[in-house]
Amino acid sequence: KYRQMPRSVGGLDAAHEWGAFRAMLPDLQGQRVLDLGCGFGWHCRYARQQGAASVVGVDISEKMLARAREMTEDPAIQYIQAAIEDIDFPAESFDVAISSLAIHYVERFDLVCRAVRQCLTVGGAFVLSVEHPTFTAVATQNWSLGPSGERLHWPVDDYQQETIRHTQWLAPDVVKYHRTFATYLNTLIDEGFQISRLSEAPVTAEDIAQNPGLKDDRRRPTFLLIAAVKDTLP
Amino acid sequence: KYRQMPRSVGGLDAAHEWGAFRAMLPDLQGQRVLDLGCGFGWHCRYARQQGAASVVGVDISEKMLARAREMTEDPAIQYIQAAIEDIDFPAESFDVAISSLAIHYVERFDLVCRAVRQCLTVGGAFVLSVEHPTFTAVATQNWSLGPSGERLHWPVDDYQQETIRHTQWLAPDVVKYHRTFATYLNTLIDEGFQISRLSEAPVTAEDIAQNPGLKDDRRRPTFLLIAAVKDTLP
Repeated sequence: KYRQMPRSVGGLDAAHEWGAFRAMLPDLQGQRVLDLGCGFGWHCRYARQQGAASVVGVDISEKMLARAREMTEDPAIQYIQAAIEDIDFPAESFDVAISSLAIHYVERFDLVCRAVRQCLTVGGAFVLSVEHPTFTAVATQNWSLGPSGERLHWPVDDYQQETIRHTQWLAPDVVKYHRTFATYLNTLIDEGFQISRLSEAPVTAEDIAQNPGLKDDRRRPTFLLIAAVKDTLP
Repeated sequence: KYRQMPRSVGGLDAAHEWGAFRAMLPDLQGQRVLDLGCGFGWHCRYARQQGAASVVGVDISEKMLARAREMTEDPAIQYIQAAIEDIDFPAESFDVAISSLAIHYVERFDLVCRAVRQCLTVGGAFVLSVEHPTFTAVATQNWSLGPSGERLHWPVDDYQQETIRHTQWLAPDVVKYHRTFATYLNTLIDEGFQISRLSEAPVTAEDIAQNPGLKDDRRRPTFLLIAAVKDTLP
């Protein structure tokens, strides 16, 4: 089913947060890029189009990697099957680390940050997107509906409870990890990153013109995007 | 009515976010402290108890300042009537700036940050609390209620619309300014601050033991607390 989603068929341009994510990336020219949760490899190929020297895409799903390899003819892109939090690359082997909509599937964000910091150069950027904490709080991940099915508002509950959420997203039981906004940012800071930019990927008029179904995404925050840099301090 | 609120009668200990706010403050010993939106002066007096060298409290309400002065016998605390965004102190005249639950009443957060940066020493801390963006999004600022008045969930709507909210809080029309999480953090960063700590003031079991009415504050984020430092860069 994931393969049938607009972003799987149409690539990055079909994902409404892509414009905001792209704007947070540093210049990739000549950079060694790591993509955590690379899926079909869209971001890996984009990085090379932008002049990245090399890209490593990591994903836990061998199926997704098989499809990524099918779609990629570029010896400078390497795909590796691993859990994001288990990566173990040599120190300072990457200049930029990115992760698009993968980390809310990972239980230990602290381990992800530690692993990224270990393999990133000092001053290197870590740019990530996750489902927004306001979006992951309630497991149903759906609008509160009125009697005629109209979208009344977005419900928030159990916000401070940072535990598993059993959601139904393309599959009957997809486990996600709800974390608060404070936890995302404090974990990055504690693991030696400096916060450089935030985005909640506001939907633009242009987005809505292209995809009218996005108009309600102005009413709630759907995605959280964070750009951080590896701190110069030890 | 504000004078009858628990926090107005009982002071800081009656405010559930106070523990989280206090934990974000730097050591105040010997520091010159600025308190923006000081109200009755509770934080000003606390700063002096912690050994602050001097404190300036700023508030737009002459009534509140009159009460603050009544409650304060300390020549090292000075109260000044001004709008927060209009302060104009000499450069580097403060080591620490704090602001508790005042900035969501101010239209221009960028001007507040600029004014604070101007009068803060390099490396000085700016610690602020506001109503949480999830809390200010819907002007009614109330739970979604079920048929028996039970609290179903906290409603979010119009999140990306950063405009005035006409709320009814102790008075018929209290104007608040809704800002997104990204705007709070990016404005600080753009104005030359480095983010050092976030908190969404989670309610603890102890809080609930003291005040059972707080138990639902686990279900939503009510407050956003940010600690930042004035960057060394120009």
